[in-house]
Amino acid sequence: MKILDTINNPSDLKSLDNDELKQLCSEIREYMVECCSENPGHLGSSLGAVEIAVALHKVLDTPQDKIVWDVGHQAYAHKIITGRREAFRQNRKRGGISGFPRIDESPYDAFGAGHASNSISAALGMAEAFRLQGLPNKVVAVIGDGALTGGLAFEGLDNAGSLKPNLLVILNDNQISIDKNTSALHNHLLKITTNRHYNQLKKSVWDTLGTRKSRKWIQKVVKGAKHIIGKTVEERLSLFDSLGLRYFGPIDGNNIAVLTDTLRRIVNLPGPKILHVITVKGKGYAPAEKNQTIWHAPGKFDVTTGKRTSSKSEAARFQDVFGEVLLNLARERKEIVGITPAMATGCGMTALAEEFPERTFDVGIAEGHAVTFSAGLAAQGLLPFCNIYSTFSQRAYDNIIHDVALQNLKVILCFDRAGLVGEDGATHHGAFDLAAYRSIPNLTICAPRNELELKNMMYSATLPEYGPTIIRYPRGCGNGTPWRNVPCSVIRSGKAALLHEGRGIAILSIGAVGNKVSEAVAKAAADGIDVLHYDMRFLKPVDREAIADACSKAERIITVENGAVAGGLHGEVAEYIADNGLGNRLTGLGIPDRFIGQGTPDELYSECGFNTDDILRCIIAK
Amino acid sequence: MKILDTINNPSDLKSLDNDELKQLCSEIREYMVECCSENPGHLGSSLGAVEIAVALHKVLDTPQDKIVWDVGHQAYAHKIITGRREAFRQNRKRGGISGFPRIDESPYDAFGAGHASNSISAALGMAEAFRLQGLPNKVVAVIGDGALTGGLAFEGLDNAGSLKPNLLVILNDNQISIDKNTSALHNHLLKITTNRHYNQLKKSVWDTLGTRKSRKWIQKVVKGAKHIIGKTVEERLSLFDSLGLRYFGPIDGNNIAVLTDTLRRIVNLPGPKILHVITVKGKGYAPAEKNQTIWHAPGKFDVTTGKRTSSKSEAARFQDVFGEVLLNLARERKEIVGITPAMATGCGMTALAEEFPERTFDVGIAEGHAVTFSAGLAAQGLLPFCNIYSTFSQRAYDNIIHDVALQNLKVILCFDRAGLVGEDGATHHGAFDLAAYRSIPNLTICAPRNELELKNMMYSATLPEYGPTIIRYPRGCGNGTPWRNVPCSVIRSGKAALLHEGRGIAILSIGAVGNKVSEAVAKAAADGIDVLHYDMRFLKPVDREAIADACSKAERIITVENGAVAGGLHGEVAEYIADNGLGNRLTGLGIPDRFIGQGTPDELYSECGFNTDDILRCIIAK
Repeated sequence: MKILDTINNPSDLKSLDNDELKQLCSEIREYMVECCSENPGHLGSSLGAVEIAVALHKVLDTPQDKIVWDVGHQAYAHKIITGRREAFRQNRKRGGISGFPRIDESPYDAFGAGHASNSISAALGMAEAFRLQGLPNKVVAVIGDGALTGGLAFEGLDNAGSLKPNLLVILNDNQISIDKNTSALHNHLLKITTNRHYNQLKKSVWDTLGTRKSRKWIQKVVKGAKHIIGKTVEERLSLFDSLGLRYFGPIDGNNIAVLTDTLRRIVNLPGPKILHVITVKGKGYAPAEKNQTIWHAPGKFDVTTGKRTSSKSEAARFQDVFGEVLLNLARERKEIVGITPAMATGCGMTALAEEFPERTFDVGIAEGHAVTFSAGLAAQGLLPFCNIYSTFSQRAYDNIIHDVALQNLKVILCFDRAGLVGEDGATHHGAFDLAAYRSIPNLTICAPRNELELKNMMYSATLPEYGPTIIRYPRGCGNGTPWRNVPCSVIRSGKAALLHEGRGIAILSIGAVGNKVSEAVAKAAADGIDVLHYDMRFLKPVDREAIADACSKAERIITVENGAVAGGLHGEVAEYIADNGLGNRLTGLGIPDRFIGQGTPDELYSECGFNTDDILRCIIAK
Repeated sequence: MKILDTINNPSDLKSLDNDELKQLCSEIREYMVECCSENPGHLGSSLGAVEIAVALHKVLDTPQDKIVWDVGHQAYAHKIITGRREAFRQNRKRGGISGFPRIDESPYDAFGAGHASNSISAALGMAEAFRLQGLPNKVVAVIGDGALTGGLAFEGLDNAGSLKPNLLVILNDNQISIDKNTSALHNHLLKITTNRHYNQLKKSVWDTLGTRKSRKWIQKVVKGAKHIIGKTVEERLSLFDSLGLRYFGPIDGNNIAVLTDTLRRIVNLPGPKILHVITVKGKGYAPAEKNQTIWHAPGKFDVTTGKRTSSKSEAARFQDVFGEVLLNLARERKEIVGITPAMATGCGMTALAEEFPERTFDVGIAEGHAVTFSAGLAAQGLLPFCNIYSTFSQRAYDNIIHDVALQNLKVILCFDRAGLVGEDGATHHGAFDLAAYRSIPNLTICAPRNELELKNMMYSATLPEYGPTIIRYPRGCGNGTPWRNVPCSVIRSGKAALLHEGRGIAILSIGAVGNKVSEAVAKAAADGIDVLHYDMRFLKPVDREAIADACSKAERIITVENGAVAGGLHGEVAEYIADNGLGNRLTGLGIPDRFIGQGTPDELYSECGFNTDDILRCIIAK
C-alpha cells in the first residue's frame, strides 16, 4: 500500500495529485476488502463512497470543517484516512472502533450515525451554530438515496431551504439501499440521472462561476461526467429546487478528479446546496458490484474467489422463520399483507414478496409511515404484519401509540433484532422496546423463546384475542426447535409457560434468553438446587398467576430479559411485588442503564451480566 | 338555521344546489361560532374548512368513501353534518364528542387525527386495502399546509407516488399553521399560489378531460378562481410532480361551487392526485380572520364584539414562565438558543423570538428534526432549549435516544402539556413520557412543582451537573408561587424535597401534582395523620436516599404522578422496594393503563383517581 501507508491523517492528502489520489482510492478499496473478508462489515456502501471520503478530506479542512455521514456504514474510507487505518482491523470488535462514526471516537467523527436520515438535521444545526458564532467552518452532510426517503431527511431539507445556511448536502446516489429502492423520490432521481444532459451541469456551474478559468475546469468536469449522458430534454431538478436548495449534478461520484474539482468550486458558494453524485455500491470489487444486496454486509469471504464463507448453523434464523411462516399464513388468509421499511431481505419478507408481490409493501426507509400505513390497511379490514427492527421501531413510537394502539387497530408488529445485536453496537441494540411499550394501553406484547414459538405467536396474533400486537425476537438463530413441519397451535394471550418446578428461587424470563436460563437452571438442578422457571412469554397482558405462583414459592425472584432492566419485565414484576407488599427480593438481569457498545453477542451478554454463567452465579448467590 | 336544521346526515346534502350549499356553509359557520363562543374549541381551522367538508360529503358517497382529516380540528363542519349537529354543543366535554375525528365515534370518522401529518399514510393504506379487495371506494386525505412539513406526510407522499393508488390528497393551504409558517415548502406553495395563472388550472383540466362539456365547466371554474391571478410565468408545480402525484390547483377552497365541481371532475381520475385549495383561516368571522394565531383556539368569547372572555388566573401559566425565564437566561448567556416545532406561541417562545430572532428557530411541524437539529447545535457548543409538547415528543423519541442521549449532547428538552391536558383528550395527554424516557441512559428527567421550580430547573439544567435534560410540566397555571423577582437558585440534580414529615404512610410525588398531595397531606394532618411527603423532583437520577427514608419510616408508600402508572415513578419506586426486598406496600396513583378521553382537567384527575380527594382517601384507606 504505497500511498495508503503514508496517510495518517487528512493533512497527508493535501500534497497528492489526482493520479495519486486515484491510486490511494484503489489501495483503500483493496485494504477494505482484505480487512472485511476476515472481519465482516458493511462493505458495499463503503466501497461506493471511497472517493467521496477522500475528496472531502482533500478539499475541506477537517476536523474544523465538519462531515456528517448519514448511515455511517458509508464511512469506512473516512475512518481509514483519519488516523484509524490500523484500528480498522478491529472494526466492530469489542474494544475496537465502531462500524459507525462516533462523536467520542475521533474528532473527525462530527456526529453519530446508526439510524438513517439524521445527517441533514444535524449538519444544519452545526451550520447554524457556526453562523451564530461567526465562524467560517464548513459543514457537509453525506446522505444516501436510501436514507433520503426518511421523513427526517425531508424535515431537514425543508428547514435548510428556509434558513439558507452555508450547507452542502452530498446526495450519494447508488440507486439501491439494501434492497431495491421503491420510492417515488427514487424514480425522480433516476429520471434526472438518465434525462439530464451533462450540459445541464455545465450550465449550472457556468451561471455560478462564469469566469474563463472556470470554463476550462467545466470542460474537464463535463468530460469526466460524460458517461451520464441522457436525453437532451431540459428538466429542472424540481424537488430540491422547490425546497430552496441549489442543485448541482449529477456527476460521477467514483471519479476522484471530478469530485475534488467540483467540491472545491461549490463548497464556498453561499446558501444551501445539494450535489448529486452517482456511485456504484460495491465499486471496485466485482462480486460486490454484481450482487449489491448480498454484499451490503456479506460476512466473511474469500477475497480471490468472492466466495462467502457462511458459518452455517443447524438452527434456523428467526428472520427465516418469520419469512416462511408469514408466507404460509398469507396463503391461508388473503387479508394478510406484509409491510417492511426497506428491510425485506433482512427480515425475511422476500419470500412473501416473491409469491405475493401485490400484498407486500416495501415502503423504503420510513418506519413511521410503515406503521401508520399499516394502520390504514387494518382500518379497512386487512391484517398487516409490519416488520421493523426493534431499534428502528423507535422512529415509529408515536405512530404505534397514536395510530395503532389508541385506535385498537389490529396491526401485528414484528420487531426483529430485539435486544443486543452484537457488532453493530450502541445504535443498533433493541434495548428499549419492552420498557417503552409496556405503558401503552391496548397492546399485546410477547416474545418467542424459539422458532416454534415465533411461528405459533405469529399464528395466534391473527386471532381475535390478541390486540394490536408486538412480537419481538432477537437477531440470529433459534435453538434448533423443530418448527417447519409442526402444525400451528394457539398460544393463549397472557399465558406463561412453566419450564421448571422449584422452590426458594424463581426465575421469570421472557423471550429467547429463556434458553440461557434453562441451561443455568439445569446446571443448578444438577447441583441439587431446583429453581422455579417460568417463560413469561407475554409482557402484556402479563400472567399474574405465574408471578403470584413464583412469589409464593420463592423468596428470591430473578427476572431475565434481553432488554433494559429499568421498566421492562423487571419493572412489571417489581410493580407486582411492591403493589402487593409481598416482600420478595428481586434481581433484574438484562441490559443495564448505560449504552452498550459493540462485540459478539456472547461478549455483550457477559458484559451486561445475563449470560448463562451470570444467571447461574445469580442463582447460587445469596 | 333554515337549511342546517334539515341536515341530519350527508345524504341530505345531495338535493341541495349551489346556492343552498352556500347558504348551508354560512349557517354552519354561524352555528360553529355560536357553539364555540360558549364551549371553546379550535375555531380558526374549522371555519376555514367548512366548504371542504360540505363539498366532500356532497360529492363522495360517505361513509363508504373515506375522508381522512389531518389534524382533526379542521373537522368541525364534518362532524356537524354527519349526524352530530346537536352533539357538537358538547364538543370536547367529558361524555361529549371529541374535538378530533375518532374511529369509534362515528362511521364517518375514518381515522383518528390528533397528531399532525398522518393522513396521507393512513389514507394510502385504505386505498391499497380497497384495491386489494377489488372495491371501488374512494379515499380522500385532507391535510393542511402546516402538517405537510411533517416528515411523515412526506413519507406518505413518496410512497403514494410510487404505489400509484386512486387517492386524492386535498392540500388545505391557509398559509398559516398556528404561528406563522417558516418552511421552504411554504415558500414554494406561496410562490405557486401567487405565480400560477389560473390558465394553468384550465390547461391541466383541459388535458385531462378535453371534452366540450367539460370546457364549459372549466370556464366556470376559472371564473370562480379568477381572484387567484398572478404572473403569467409558466411554472410546473415541481415538488408534487417530482413525487409522481398529479397536481391540480390552486383553487379557491372557500368557494363551494368551484370546490364541488372540481372535486366531481377529478375524484374519479386514476392515480394519486393532489388538489391545492386556498382557504382563509377563520373564514367568515371577522375577528378570527384578522388575528389567526389567537383565534386558532380562542377560548370563550362574545360573538358580537369578538371580545375574548379570558378567565384570568392569579397564577402564571407554566408556558409564560418558560418564555420569560428562557429570555432572561438567553440575555445572560449568548450560547442559549430556542427551538420549537411550530408552537412558539403555545410554549411561550415568542418572547425569545422578539428579542433574539436569530437565536430562535421555529422549524415547523417537525418534532424529530427539532431534536436532531438541537443536537447539531449542541455539538458545536450552543445550549439549545427545545420545547415540545409532551404528546408530540413521541414523534422525537428516537431522536432523543439516538442523537441526544447516546451522544450525551446537552440539549435541554422542555416538555410542555405533560400529563392530562383536558379537553383535547386522548391524543393530546402527555401520559407516557416518564415511563418512556426513564429507561434511556444519560438523561436527566425532572418535573417542577411550581413556577419557581420551573425557573430554577431551567437555570440548573444549564449547569454541567445536568446531562441532556427533560423538564416536564403540565398545561395551564402554576399554584401562584412567586417567581418573577426571585433570583435563580440551583436545584441539585437528583435531590428530592422533603415537604412534610410523617410516619406510617409516605407519599412520593413528582411535578405539580405534588400540590394536590400537599393539600391532601394537610387535610390528613388536621385529622391527626402525619404523612411523610417527598417531592421527588427527579425521576432520573432518582433520589434513592429519599426513597430509603420513606421505606424505613412507612410501611405503606404511595406514588403520585401525572403520567402512566406503569413504568414511571411508580415503576422506579417499585423496583427499589422489590430489588431491596423491603416489603413495603406500594400504591401507584396516576394515569391507569387505558386511554383517557377528554374533560376538564379536574374531571380527568378524578376519573384517573389522583385528585386531592382520591389521594386523601388513599391515605385513609388500609
